[in-house]
Amino acid sequence: MRIYGEEHPNQEILSRIATNDGHGENSSYFDGWKAYENDPFHLTDNPTGVIQMGLAENQLSLDLIQDWMKKNPQASICTEEGVSEFKAIANFQDYHGLPAFRKAIAQFMEKVRGGRARFDPDRIVMSGGATGAQETIAFCLADPGEAFLIPTPYYPGFDRDFRWRTGVQLLPIHCHSSNKFKITQAALETAYRKARNSHIRVKGILVTNPSNPLGTTMDRDTLRTLVSFVNEKRMHLVCDEVFSGTVFDKPSYVSVAEVIQDDPYCDRDLIHIAYSLSKDLGVPGFRVGVIYSYNDAVVSCARKMSSFGLVSSQTQHLLASMLGDEEFTTSFLATSRTRLCGRRRVFTDGLKRVGIHCLDGNAGLFCWMDLRPLLKEATVEAELRLWRVIINDVKLNISPGSSFHCSEPGWFRVCFANMDDTAMKIALRRIENFVYRENDAAVQAKNKRKWDETLRLSLPRRFEDPTIMTPHLMSPHSPLVQAAT
Amino acid sequence: MRIYGEEHPNQEILSRIATNDGHGENSSYFDGWKAYENDPFHLTDNPTGVIQMGLAENQLSLDLIQDWMKKNPQASICTEEGVSEFKAIANFQDYHGLPAFRKAIAQFMEKVRGGRARFDPDRIVMSGGATGAQETIAFCLADPGEAFLIPTPYYPGFDRDFRWRTGVQLLPIHCHSSNKFKITQAALETAYRKARNSHIRVKGILVTNPSNPLGTTMDRDTLRTLVSFVNEKRMHLVCDEVFSGTVFDKPSYVSVAEVIQDDPYCDRDLIHIAYSLSKDLGVPGFRVGVIYSYNDAVVSCARKMSSFGLVSSQTQHLLASMLGDEEFTTSFLATSRTRLCGRRRVFTDGLKRVGIHCLDGNAGLFCWMDLRPLLKEATVEAELRLWRVIINDVKLNISPGSSFHCSEPGWFRVCFANMDDTAMKIALRRIENFVYRENDAAVQAKNKRKWDETLRLSLPRRFEDPTIMTPHLMSPHSPLVQAAT
Repeated sequence: MRIYGEEHPNQEILSRIATNDGHGENSSYFDGWKAYENDPFHLTDNPTGVIQMGLAENQLSLDLIQDWMKKNPQASICTEEGVSEFKAIANFQDYHGLPAFRKAIAQFMEKVRGGRARFDPDRIVMSGGATGAQETIAFCLADPGEAFLIPTPYYPGFDRDFRWRTGVQLLPIHCHSSNKFKITQAALETAYRKARNSHIRVKGILVTNPSNPLGTTMDRDTLRTLVSFVNEKRMHLVCDEVFSGTVFDKPSYVSVAEVIQDDPYCDRDLIHIAYSLSKDLGVPGFRVGVIYSYNDAVVSCARKMSSFGLVSSQTQHLLASMLGDEEFTTSFLATSRTRLCGRRRVFTDGLKRVGIHCLDGNAGLFCWMDLRPLLKEATVEAELRLWRVIINDVKLNISPGSSFHCSEPGWFRVCFANMDDTAMKIALRRIENFVYRENDAAVQAKNKRKWDETLRLSLPRRFEDPTIMTPHLMSPHSPLVQAAT
Repeated sequence: MRIYGEEHPNQEILSRIATNDGHGENSSYFDGWKAYENDPFHLTDNPTGVIQMGLAENQLSLDLIQDWMKKNPQASICTEEGVSEFKAIANFQDYHGLPAFRKAIAQFMEKVRGGRARFDPDRIVMSGGATGAQETIAFCLADPGEAFLIPTPYYPGFDRDFRWRTGVQLLPIHCHSSNKFKITQAALETAYRKARNSHIRVKGILVTNPSNPLGTTMDRDTLRTLVSFVNEKRMHLVCDEVFSGTVFDKPSYVSVAEVIQDDPYCDRDLIHIAYSLSKDLGVPGFRVGVIYSYNDAVVSCARKMSSFGLVSSQTQHLLASMLGDEEFTTSFLATSRTRLCGRRRVFTDGLKRVGIHCLDGNAGLFCWMDLRPLLKEATVEAELRLWRVIINDVKLNISPGSSFHCSEPGWFRVCFANMDDTAMKIALRRIENFVYRENDAAVQAKNKRKWDETLRLSLPRRFEDPTIMTPHLMSPHSPLVQAAT
């Protein structure tokens, strides 16, 4: 297919938005997708193609939904059993949404949070995926030029969703591996002060919980720190909880909804949640986003804005039935978590065998993989060089930390739930082979050069990570494998 | 259901957009909807309730779609016959859309235009209904503060869709009943000059063709005038063609697509079409909007923006099959047009019997009804007084011309395709009774007052319309009936 208009021959007649690159697609994050699309792996048709590990997609439990649909033909307006609802549903365009849909979504959000938080169906506002939810929230809360603070690393899509058409800024709260990228009060204060010193009005904080890309959940204390901070400064806290149904391991999930329920001093007008079914159910094509605000004016305004991205009534109707089936959702969530947990374990165990570590994670569809030992130097350039090798030679599309605004080079997000077991095995084998090859190269280099030169030019950063400072480091086969033993 | 947040207790922490009323819902157009919602007509449950004639909805041919679905279970991912496609479709989130969907939409757009215009599937960009299409176009073409010219009367939703979040202005091109509200070169020049004199940069013209609210189609000469004008001034022409499939009578429809095909001098980078299936198929709940631009950069940018309002893949998949069925679409369009034509005739004939006229129309789901003879004076206030009587006493929600920015008081848009035959009969009876009552009141007034006083105070404007200047005017039963004979 021809893609039109990559150039802008008529800049003067279009808008600034149309002629700048605020959409954020000029990023290695999206370049990786393109590399995959140009040469997509297929077990039989293109076995040497690029394996897509840059897309946080949940394909592991779609069979459960498919089975449910076979058993519930009445839930669809396209079946003999359900078609009598067709006219009413096809015509339904009230931006409040189908009452049964709102109720089912609220129920599902409660179930995902273990019943520890309550959600009012009348506060459920629809949006075109989490993408639309984020933009709507930004339009409601901030004027152009105003800013939200956001802990790094963060999801690159926010640059489009939250900023592009709204003119709102995102300013980093720098987080570090030294404390597993947790947000601290000090980091918050630093980011806030820096903005104020630049005369930028800070309107709030945007976080993902579970974190994309870290695959971790926020602890209760961190959430309390954030809630206190926004109350003290009278600004907003936006929690993107689109991965809340993927928490597959301890510690158990704590939503901001739960924290503020227990906090009589919190001004709830400042708290907003973005949700979506794309990740938890694995149905991104259905474009189901949700804005859940505790602020009445935001609910009212966001609902008016929802006209720009309502969920298809055909989809609302189907999901109202499906999410209203408590037995199904209970069983779906349990099975989905078990499968995600199993898949992550297969992947991280495989990585460990070649000495690669990931940040400890308990949620999400991805690992935050530490390739700092493989960097030639601790720079973004070196990270991107390594990334290009991985894309072009190893044929895996993984996403470099710099595309997530990470302040430490060498981290990569690797998605593990958008493929079958076979593709996962092949991906792991490619990584193993790559590591062996790198090590062989290092050994050869050793034989040619002096020891200290090898250390400086070839693998200098390995020694910055104490976890791999072992006597086996330069084993002829795999220092990283040895380090992990 | 409780509706949250009609007040703004926390203005200082929200955005200007969230705290102004740029959404346009504070209009008699939407107040009418609310009046209906508070007391909706139902043949048996609430026979004295308000009949909704303020909603341009097409309910007349949904049975055809329903029949098609029964015969084509494989088209849905929710049936035994189609569920094998479920995983691939639920996961599909490419913003280019399903290739089969884009192809089917392009085919359908060609068919609607009698095959006289060609559409390239690769230029079809999805949006959340025409609402999303209009906003996307505005974001692509103009910066905040810049303006589009728009002929009056125009669809009130544009104030939300085109202006609210974009900051773009809409400036009226005043059109008048004297030439059936046609756009003239002189009116165009006047509007353009006025904007320039106010130092406002005009970026384009936005028109609806067929017109909402007029129910008329634009002639080829007017379209040529518009195309020449935008080429001369180097600005954009945006044609909203969401009612193009409803043209049910002569003259046959001319799309801007057809006009520019025949015009070698037109710079196509300036031409953009908004389309939707909501009106032509009667499926507004499905949220299918389309941006069709001849400008490559706009196609590329709008596609990136489409992330905020993609069509559910479940819906894309279904419609790809349905609109790809040429036999069905041919027959659907023919039957739908016949039914719309018949319904309009029933309605306008009924109105004529009581002396009420509508602008001659050949398209749309509404009439542009002339109640100038019933106004006490030619003002917006008088129009709104009459409108309140019609809503509250006659129990019909029709939309006053002032909510469409019409510069002549006394016109009303009345929708006729969102109800069954019985409701239509009841609506007509209510109008008849109202007119009889008004006339009786006029006669009583005549008996009480002097002739000239009656003329001045009670029915002065009737005499401004020569079509009802007949000797029967003050007949005891119905001057308007008599005038129409």
